[in-house]
Amino acid sequence: MLSALDVARRLDAGTLSLDALYDEVEAAIARREEEIGAFVSVDIAAARTAAHGAYGPLAGMPIGVKDNIETGDRATAYGSAIHQGYRPAVDAAVVALARRAGATIVGKTVTTEFAFFSPGPTRNPHNLEHTPGGSSSGSAAGVAAGFFPLGLGTQTGGSVVRPAAFCGIAGFKPSFGCLPTVGVKIFSWSLDTVGIFARSIADAAFGAGVLADRDWRVDGEVPAPPRLGFVEPQPWAQADEEMAVALERVRIAAERAGAAIRPVALPPVLREAFAAHQTIQDYEATRALAAEVDLCPEKLSPVLRQTLDAGAAITATAYDDAQRTADQARRAFADILSEVDVLVTPSAPGAAPIGLASTGSSVFNRVWTLIGAPSANVPGMTGATGLPLGVQTIGAVGADGKMLKAAHWLEKCVAAAADN
Amino acid sequence: MLSALDVARRLDAGTLSLDALYDEVEAAIARREEEIGAFVSVDIAAARTAAHGAYGPLAGMPIGVKDNIETGDRATAYGSAIHQGYRPAVDAAVVALARRAGATIVGKTVTTEFAFFSPGPTRNPHNLEHTPGGSSSGSAAGVAAGFFPLGLGTQTGGSVVRPAAFCGIAGFKPSFGCLPTVGVKIFSWSLDTVGIFARSIADAAFGAGVLADRDWRVDGEVPAPPRLGFVEPQPWAQADEEMAVALERVRIAAERAGAAIRPVALPPVLREAFAAHQTIQDYEATRALAAEVDLCPEKLSPVLRQTLDAGAAITATAYDDAQRTADQARRAFADILSEVDVLVTPSAPGAAPIGLASTGSSVFNRVWTLIGAPSANVPGMTGATGLPLGVQTIGAVGADGKMLKAAHWLEKCVAAAADN
Repeated sequence: MLSALDVARRLDAGTLSLDALYDEVEAAIARREEEIGAFVSVDIAAARTAAHGAYGPLAGMPIGVKDNIETGDRATAYGSAIHQGYRPAVDAAVVALARRAGATIVGKTVTTEFAFFSPGPTRNPHNLEHTPGGSSSGSAAGVAAGFFPLGLGTQTGGSVVRPAAFCGIAGFKPSFGCLPTVGVKIFSWSLDTVGIFARSIADAAFGAGVLADRDWRVDGEVPAPPRLGFVEPQPWAQADEEMAVALERVRIAAERAGAAIRPVALPPVLREAFAAHQTIQDYEATRALAAEVDLCPEKLSPVLRQTLDAGAAITATAYDDAQRTADQARRAFADILSEVDVLVTPSAPGAAPIGLASTGSSVFNRVWTLIGAPSANVPGMTGATGLPLGVQTIGAVGADGKMLKAAHWLEKCVAAAADN
Repeated sequence: MLSALDVARRLDAGTLSLDALYDEVEAAIARREEEIGAFVSVDIAAARTAAHGAYGPLAGMPIGVKDNIETGDRATAYGSAIHQGYRPAVDAAVVALARRAGATIVGKTVTTEFAFFSPGPTRNPHNLEHTPGGSSSGSAAGVAAGFFPLGLGTQTGGSVVRPAAFCGIAGFKPSFGCLPTVGVKIFSWSLDTVGIFARSIADAAFGAGVLADRDWRVDGEVPAPPRLGFVEPQPWAQADEEMAVALERVRIAAERAGAAIRPVALPPVLREAFAAHQTIQDYEATRALAAEVDLCPEKLSPVLRQTLDAGAAITATAYDDAQRTADQARRAFADILSEVDVLVTPSAPGAAPIGLASTGSSVFNRVWTLIGAPSANVPGMTGATGLPLGVQTIGAVGADGKMLKAAHWLEKCVAAAADN
């Protein structure tokens, strides 16, 4: 895998040339893209040329951009048959900000249909028979396969944290609203959040910090051991045996390394928030995609049509109630996060499921997306079958820097434990 | 002016034919569009044809759509030289919802550049030497000129309430998030709100209620006299002499008609919110338009470039502080609105200013947009020069129905007072 910080430092120091970097990118893609299928389109030559004229904190940095994020110089199809070949007028805001910082787009990456459920062809670099997760399948798999050190994705339920976990990389979803969704194909305007994939938490913090104009860097720091809240019992779902064991190992390692461990029982409103997420998502998606539904319903996948039909049956009253629940959950969550630095939970029920028909479950991610809290997948663990297992850290809304510090600490702790 | 409710009722009862309606629309446009300039494009024939196949609560209803809202069948230029001739792939969500309800698009209407400050050619139907207000200039002027009974607009500062006031019609900005901004060219994602123009509050409530899937209708109701809060002193700006007199007349008339009148002193945080609005707007606009700024800055107006330069100088810390102020203002506002049904303020410092170089000031509207509160312009008063004067009602976030009831009551009260 390529490290964004390492690439930036070596380019800066002159120990890595742009051509050597793009040769490496090109070789990695030539070697594995055919079997992985991370891209919907790729143009290394254009990226290489752009890199030679780039300046800024990400000067020359190769990135992958999920194909629900518009690009002015490349087609953007949102993973939908309806929009094949569509060419937006201009870049999405976050893409423009990335280019302004010097990043260059290697390719547009596979998204599930409208960043919802119906998967694309991408396979998990760790085992081609397994899903890479979704909806940001291509950006996650592309980072894991060494195609680019930074990938842009979006999360409505768990579409950044989950694929990061399945692909064994860092995934960071900032607080809601930090990164602009202007030019992102919106599925749910109360939920959709732009996030970033990278080899490590430090890399993700570096890249996202540049885009969000925030001082989020954690590299070079030796942070103090954080206060970690472990959710007990998990109210929404059970982790599988392997994940439960992994989480317990993390807890023990963190405690040994000096973290303050606290069990956290979620109040009832946070359980209600789980249902509120689906109500809000489905109600809004039905409206966000109204044009597509009316124009060519036959080009929507059956699973999406079903969801939109369900959304159409949700009353405005039920939606308004769900928004009120979300507000209450935000307040309750803020109280919990005054006692600990982050919550720690599984990123997913287990390792990446076998098969490509489903991208797995966002059951462990949805509520935090609803609340708008920053969350990340901390990579570094491996399950019995050799597939990655990820734990999720969740911070207070707006306290992205603190969350990233704790995640960075935990990543080092997990790595140290794995070495023993 | 055409009344949306009247059109719907007469079409339904068979006392108005679609052809007679579109003949009337066509005649009004032929008579006055050349001097008013409400449209960037108009296609009555297409609207007429579509109307004949339409069904739903707005079946056959002619509407005007502000040109920062995308339409799949017509160019959408966002009022910007950069996007001239741009043809979106599909309708914005709110346009799709309008069509689904049976409405037909007569034309795209003039917006200021990216719905900010730099005016289009539209003139005020009441006096061609005066601005119609902005940024939703064409939709407001078009309703006032009888071109269509319902117009769609957007508000970031005061772009619905102010042009409605200047054009002597009703303008309604629902609570933030009620109407989807998917497919609207975003200027500030924390502020941009879709709103509606109509002849009366009852018409606006009817149209917006259909689009928002909410029971907002107030026609036929004889609501109880509301509790009205009058802001004293006005913290942000002075109304001019004429407006101050008009507001006092409204207060007296409302009190005589049985309303409970309460003076409301705004707490300091609501004054701070005024500055927070500009910080958030400028910071976000600089990012929302990053692609345009980098692609062709020479095609941006000087006033927009200046604003975006100012936005670029705002730190993330200042922005985060402004968002915190906004949250506090929302809570303080909720407390105030537990004591009254609505606040009543001027919609603008006075009547429409002379000249077309500026669309006037949003000083009386910005804070309520920041808070996300529903607000409306109540029409019905006329100043000494014959230009309309508008008062603004502001309700609790999410209590759009209650706000519309109070505005409807006030509109009738103002009309009765004007008759005496």
